[in-house]
Amino acid sequence: MSDVGTGAVPLVELWRGGMLESQHLGHAVICDASGVIESWGNPAAVIYPRSSCKMIQALPLLESGAGAGLDNRRLALACASHQGSALHTAAVESWLGDMGLSEQDLRCGAHEPTDIPERNRLICSGDAFCQLHNNCSGKHAGFLMLNKHLGGGSEYTEVDHPVQRAIKTAFEEVTGEDSPGWGIDGCSAPNFATSVTGLARAMARFASAQETDARSRAMVKLREAMPAHPEMVAGETRACTELMRVMDGVAIKTGAEAVFVAILPSKGLGVALKIIDGGTRASEAAIVAILSRLGVLDPAHPMALKRLGAPQANWRGKVWGELRRADGFC
Amino acid sequence: MSDVGTGAVPLVELWRGGMLESQHLGHAVICDASGVIESWGNPAAVIYPRSSCKMIQALPLLESGAGAGLDNRRLALACASHQGSALHTAAVESWLGDMGLSEQDLRCGAHEPTDIPERNRLICSGDAFCQLHNNCSGKHAGFLMLNKHLGGGSEYTEVDHPVQRAIKTAFEEVTGEDSPGWGIDGCSAPNFATSVTGLARAMARFASAQETDARSRAMVKLREAMPAHPEMVAGETRACTELMRVMDGVAIKTGAEAVFVAILPSKGLGVALKIIDGGTRASEAAIVAILSRLGVLDPAHPMALKRLGAPQANWRGKVWGELRRADGFC
Repeated sequence: MSDVGTGAVPLVELWRGGMLESQHLGHAVICDASGVIESWGNPAAVIYPRSSCKMIQALPLLESGAGAGLDNRRLALACASHQGSALHTAAVESWLGDMGLSEQDLRCGAHEPTDIPERNRLICSGDAFCQLHNNCSGKHAGFLMLNKHLGGGSEYTEVDHPVQRAIKTAFEEVTGEDSPGWGIDGCSAPNFATSVTGLARAMARFASAQETDARSRAMVKLREAMPAHPEMVAGETRACTELMRVMDGVAIKTGAEAVFVAILPSKGLGVALKIIDGGTRASEAAIVAILSRLGVLDPAHPMALKRLGAPQANWRGKVWGELRRADGFC
Repeated sequence: MSDVGTGAVPLVELWRGGMLESQHLGHAVICDASGVIESWGNPAAVIYPRSSCKMIQALPLLESGAGAGLDNRRLALACASHQGSALHTAAVESWLGDMGLSEQDLRCGAHEPTDIPERNRLICSGDAFCQLHNNCSGKHAGFLMLNKHLGGGSEYTEVDHPVQRAIKTAFEEVTGEDSPGWGIDGCSAPNFATSVTGLARAMARFASAQETDARSRAMVKLREAMPAHPEMVAGETRACTELMRVMDGVAIKTGAEAVFVAILPSKGLGVALKIIDGGTRASEAAIVAILSRLGVLDPAHPMALKRLGAPQANWRGKVWGELRRADGFC
């Protein structure tokens, strides 16, 4: 294992006026059940998966039986970084209500929603945003459901809480690595580090799971729930939602600081990538390049071109350049 | 000269939980009147200065005599990437009015203001944002004033228009390089490329100008107008404004895609830097590091720490990490 900067290579470039204006370096790994089949940059680079590992964080919820009755909509929400639209906040509030809990039981913190209609409604009504608007509130509803089952205390985001201990165990098992450390995520939950290969390996296990035991049954449910409800995983205009809608059964998930993962059940493949500078435009472009290379996304589809290759126009509609794949990547 | 990726070195790092999470590479150059005195990365890397060169774009306005009567507030606005607050839009509208022109004469395009009170006012009133809100509208008012003097046509953002030809000539003279190309900026104006050294050299010329001719008189006026009215150059909460307020007579300017420049008259020094990935948090951190090294900014001042070194907290106030200078930089 090595630090995130070591061995990074150019993956995505911004061109303007026929000249390279900006460049994004990173690491990307494609795994099948037996290991790495292709990589760019340094597969051993250690990263924080951030929100890209929410489907891993949801494993104990299902494996424990706590989430047995959850429908695909709520499972997708447990894996979501949603934008706090009315659709999302209502769904989380209803899930909490069914558990006899409320917004006050969440420990994710509150932030302004990124959904524009909901943001504008709050601004003009003077209503305050709340923890339901937090992009991680669905994941936290899942944490609370697991916590009811485990009988832990209210501070379920502490790293030594039973909920987080269960998640750490699952995380290390599916990545196949002892996590070299952890940090506090935006939503206050611990986020465990792993190599890019570890994260891709975990995604390959999701992709190749066959419902032979509790874990693989949980993996199948989660990988099916996400593309079944792409609107719950992110929201309108967002990469996860728009790209899952135009693929067939592929689950993808973004994470803060430019991480992206993909689960391709039809091919038994898992993908993980990290742009070392944390630039989301580049992680979105890079996952489009890989999904296109793997034959599950049409690179000419408008939703793909929007992230990689489409001419970029300014406020007056003048085209100034485009994002490109770097030479040697995909 | 070489492309922006060649020879870039780590300048700024994001740490979380005691581990390196993200890393920003870049180039930085410090010049005095005689040339490069210190650099990191590749001084010959070619970049688009974007909005960091607005004080260069304002030179023909003053050198021609067209802007002879402008006060420091309008000169600062000509060099601004403002956030479209009521303060800024009123100032641009008044300047246009004094020329017998209006918002319709601008060619910068319209975008939502980044100033939160003005943005919220527009959202709740249903009023549309307009070209006055464009962060470059002050620069364009300056273009229009120069254009009245030159007698050019209305499409003053075309690269072969007299306004832009005058700017290209000034740009190549003060950078000391033939520009290797140009691109269309967000505001539709041409943006001429140069090396990081060329941009730093231009800033050193601003810093050491002695009012001996029309150019040096223009340089002195512009370098004095910016720190005299930091609120016009950017706006509340913004790096340019907050940092110029706590320094003594230092002019600084950000540019899109993570460019930053500084003019230090007291030391006769000019600075230019580019983060290759375009991440603004890193260009702000890097300019703080350089200004601190050069002794014109207290690195422990809250406005400096805000960009480099302060503990970063999440939505619940939990500290998760910080931005750091990379080893070997400053």
